[in-house]
Amino acid sequence: MVPIVSIVGLSGSGKTTLMERLIPELKRRSYRIGTIKHDAHRFEIDHPGKDTWRHAQAGADAVAISSSEKIALIKRVSAEPSLRELEVMGFLDVDLILTEGYKRGKEPKIEVVPPGISSPQLICSGEDNLIAVVSDEARSGSLPWFARGEIEKIADFLEKRYLKPREPQEIQLIVSGREIPLNTFLQGFFINTIRGMLVSLKGVEAGDDVMIQVKGKEVRNS
Amino acid sequence: MVPIVSIVGLSGSGKTTLMERLIPELKRRSYRIGTIKHDAHRFEIDHPGKDTWRHAQAGADAVAISSSEKIALIKRVSAEPSLRELEVMGFLDVDLILTEGYKRGKEPKIEVVPPGISSPQLICSGEDNLIAVVSDEARSGSLPWFARGEIEKIADFLEKRYLKPREPQEIQLIVSGREIPLNTFLQGFFINTIRGMLVSLKGVEAGDDVMIQVKGKEVRNS
Repeated sequence: MVPIVSIVGLSGSGKTTLMERLIPELKRRSYRIGTIKHDAHRFEIDHPGKDTWRHAQAGADAVAISSSEKIALIKRVSAEPSLRELEVMGFLDVDLILTEGYKRGKEPKIEVVPPGISSPQLICSGEDNLIAVVSDEARSGSLPWFARGEIEKIADFLEKRYLKPREPQEIQLIVSGREIPLNTFLQGFFINTIRGMLVSLKGVEAGDDVMIQVKGKEVRNS
Repeated sequence: MVPIVSIVGLSGSGKTTLMERLIPELKRRSYRIGTIKHDAHRFEIDHPGKDTWRHAQAGADAVAISSSEKIALIKRVSAEPSLRELEVMGFLDVDLILTEGYKRGKEPKIEVVPPGISSPQLICSGEDNLIAVVSDEARSGSLPWFARGEIEKIADFLEKRYLKPREPQEIQLIVSGREIPLNTFLQGFFINTIRGMLVSLKGVEAGDDVMIQVKGKEVRNS
């Protein structure tokens, strides 16, 4: 699972600005970053008159546009998907997901306090999995508390806590001589399935290396 | 795999208009429809200044916005994904994917001829997996050839050829009494893995019903 950290705070507290400054700092450190924004209203993202917009207006349940640089997918849902469902849709290849909003989620949270407030009333507590606070000035205390401008320090904090260097890929799948790339989800799925099958065999230990080869069948002409 | 049919044709031939009219007709018949548009240029879908736009401008590799009605995902890619990769991202729960463009793909194609052309030179041939043509007037011949306005007939053709009634779900996964929904991809993955494990057991036939129960371990306090 990709680590998720939620940036929460009242409207106007500076959540988007903080994300806008954190993302390039984390990118400078060579991490792949995804963002998810929670929207309580009806957002409009496509431009009226564009072909994809016309597909959606005509009633399509899911609409995508795809090029060699970028893809976009817009999808009707019957209920708000969980962050983990969104992760599987498009975030399995990032190192960290920052969400804007999702105060009610169980993910770790950084609360941003609106500017000009000297004695902030936080909207989150330890029960909300609050891990740090950002306001006009840094403070000392039991919780990491950063000043708005301390982008490098906040990135250090996230890096140390959530951005362990990626482990090298634990599974390699080669089919007819061609390596098949597996995303994080499928890597885990394959590893757990295969380890699960082997656990009952005598002489196999949990930490053993495993190699399985399945010989192909020759295709018969019929 | 979800069936994919590509609507192809020269620029200005009326591909979007045909899709715009086909989608509501297929929706009226209770199918879930997805669309994918191929874009050869740099498309812009988000609105400058919006929070998600700011995340992307700041360098995020993947950006999503999520509400209880709709989700949107915009993702940088290093190479154009295949239609089947896009299918896994967001189209596993539709009955049919119509693409606009993708002339070079191997998917079955309906070619739309621009209006006002009496002796059309088609851009596709049988080698391109051309399955039908749409132009100002219907024609008879070896290939189904519809008039632009025969939306019901085109929908009948697609329905008969690609929209078999969905088979009832073949696998049910219940964990601690709760049914876990599996999408088409995971259903196939589970079924094939389990049937694959059983194929070598004596007395198990390919068509047999299977039930597997795995007893949970009690969590120990430590």
